[in-house]
Amino acid sequence: MTTQSDPTGLHRVLDDATVLPQAARRLDTRRELWPDEVRIRVERLNLDAASFRQLEGEHGDGAAVRAAVLAIVAERGKMQNPVTGSGGMLIGTVEEVGPESPLGLRVGQRVATLVSLTLTPLVIEDGLDGWDGRTEQVPCDGYAVLFGRSIAAVLPDDLPTGLSLAVMDVCGAPALTARVVQQYVERGARPRVAVIGGGGKSGSLALAAARAEGAGVLVGVVPTETEAARLRAAGLADAVVVTDARDPIALRDAVAATGGAADVTVVCVDVPGCEGGAILATAEGGTVIFFSMATSFSAAALGAEGVAADVTMLVGNGYVPGHATYALELLRTNTGVRGLFEGRLA
Amino acid sequence: MTTQSDPTGLHRVLDDATVLPQAARRLDTRRELWPDEVRIRVERLNLDAASFRQLEGEHGDGAAVRAAVLAIVAERGKMQNPVTGSGGMLIGTVEEVGPESPLGLRVGQRVATLVSLTLTPLVIEDGLDGWDGRTEQVPCDGYAVLFGRSIAAVLPDDLPTGLSLAVMDVCGAPALTARVVQQYVERGARPRVAVIGGGGKSGSLALAAARAEGAGVLVGVVPTETEAARLRAAGLADAVVVTDARDPIALRDAVAATGGAADVTVVCVDVPGCEGGAILATAEGGTVIFFSMATSFSAAALGAEGVAADVTMLVGNGYVPGHATYALELLRTNTGVRGLFEGRLA
Repeated sequence: MTTQSDPTGLHRVLDDATVLPQAARRLDTRRELWPDEVRIRVERLNLDAASFRQLEGEHGDGAAVRAAVLAIVAERGKMQNPVTGSGGMLIGTVEEVGPESPLGLRVGQRVATLVSLTLTPLVIEDGLDGWDGRTEQVPCDGYAVLFGRSIAAVLPDDLPTGLSLAVMDVCGAPALTARVVQQYVERGARPRVAVIGGGGKSGSLALAAARAEGAGVLVGVVPTETEAARLRAAGLADAVVVTDARDPIALRDAVAATGGAADVTVVCVDVPGCEGGAILATAEGGTVIFFSMATSFSAAALGAEGVAADVTMLVGNGYVPGHATYALELLRTNTGVRGLFEGRLA
Repeated sequence: MTTQSDPTGLHRVLDDATVLPQAARRLDTRRELWPDEVRIRVERLNLDAASFRQLEGEHGDGAAVRAAVLAIVAERGKMQNPVTGSGGMLIGTVEEVGPESPLGLRVGQRVATLVSLTLTPLVIEDGLDGWDGRTEQVPCDGYAVLFGRSIAAVLPDDLPTGLSLAVMDVCGAPALTARVVQQYVERGARPRVAVIGGGGKSGSLALAAARAEGAGVLVGVVPTETEAARLRAAGLADAVVVTDARDPIALRDAVAATGGAADVTVVCVDVPGCEGGAILATAEGGTVIFFSMATSFSAAALGAEGVAADVTMLVGNGYVPGHATYALELLRTNTGVRGLFEGRLA
């Protein structure tokens, strides 16, 4: 047994090679805590959209999807979709706090974990009996472990749990979008921002963040007329266009038709193959932020090179300091965002 | 037949869905040009290092590697490794220029293509008879097609072809590294820069670029003592450390031991699994530039989130305006870089 713990959770990795928990094949899920750890009694898992879509596509039937999730967690000691590599997050109640934990949590607090399930030791104890395998939100009894360098946010009292969870799940997107827009605004510019998947959770928050930070024209790109109507009603974008983001030429032309290419393009759709269109929709010298876990690194790198596009491409880091607080505040103060989220959860 | 050409090469895509040539399963390799195209008589292919390593690992024997490359090109109409998704580049002589080509090339010029082989229509006509399947440099007779928005550079007279090709193959790395370092210098800072794989082609150029743009301490990370001795002799880094970049804790500690975490970490090694270490080796608020085609998008995104690392992560765009000229100039003016490249080709 490893006697020393590492804030990254390295001491829970069971692989032969030295890898971080996220890259590990299998984690140690022992119940006893190392001194800097926290154990959570799990109440609900929130599967990453790309992962859930893949599982649904592969297994179809709800019971088969449930069995697949149980098998993954039993085998790996964590919920990490072997195809998409992604996981999700969870909520629960603090059950035990190690004496050296730096997270500032207390037993009994209801929290959401803001680190991915792909690196969180997890044991499911109820066979997921309360889940039909048909939604990303998975009622679950079991326990999970947080490390010294993990992040968890206490759930706010003034918002329903489902709403807080849905917001926290994607809170990296508005925070990073805000930061990129701020860089333009500091130089005196008001960037044109296009959000691919602007009607979704991360997309609508990204639009609201761009507006709050002083962006210029905002374009929301959605796949259907139904979503377009919803996004128009929410008032989050100046232009809403319907197009298939996997068609690079259609996406390029649709964004251009709103008044020109985007200075900042934010990719928030959970389908593969949107890299080329996002690059072509972006002006020379502009920035593409990839938040979709379905993004292919080589498709982005080679796609930009292949069309001689001088664009900055950012890997959407799910962590920006203060991201949960920022996103919850957008939800509280922006009725359009709140309406979209409530409609989605209803 | 498509009668209209698109500068992206869309008209050569044979897939049912509308995708760019890089994402396409198969390209049309017809000899006749559309009006904005250029045909190149191929002289040599330069396979991407990650791709060649994968092919070698899978097929082992040189003849089997050759057969694999021939099969890929015959099936797809381009050289794109189905596992790594990457390709490489080529050199050759301009054979025909379409009347509407915007590339400014003339028949008879010797050029290197600076767009990836993954999107370049290619026909091999000599069965790769002159290649033993044991090096990334592949003598080849055949033809390739450039689109309106492709990039090609005329080979300089003052440098051996092999040297120019080796430099152009990785010229995006020094150009983007230079740009990121410049952003620090403009704010009055002299960033600490760590280059993982600092002894390699892209790595040594990235170190030289960082030095040229005014970086502070430069750290080169290499996997073996032999490489370390070579990099020390070249004088490109202030500190050279030997460590396995796939071990995140070892990498973090090795960089930290040179005087602290890096402000800018450049990943130039062609092996998978270096994302976590690169993130941990980087200071809060710092930047990681991923140039390796072996980079996993989800490992980077979730890895940073998983350790609550506030770092900016850039997808290494192979295109930056002026990148070939910049890299060739570094080679001409930096004897350390030139020595490393010549040693590698000898």
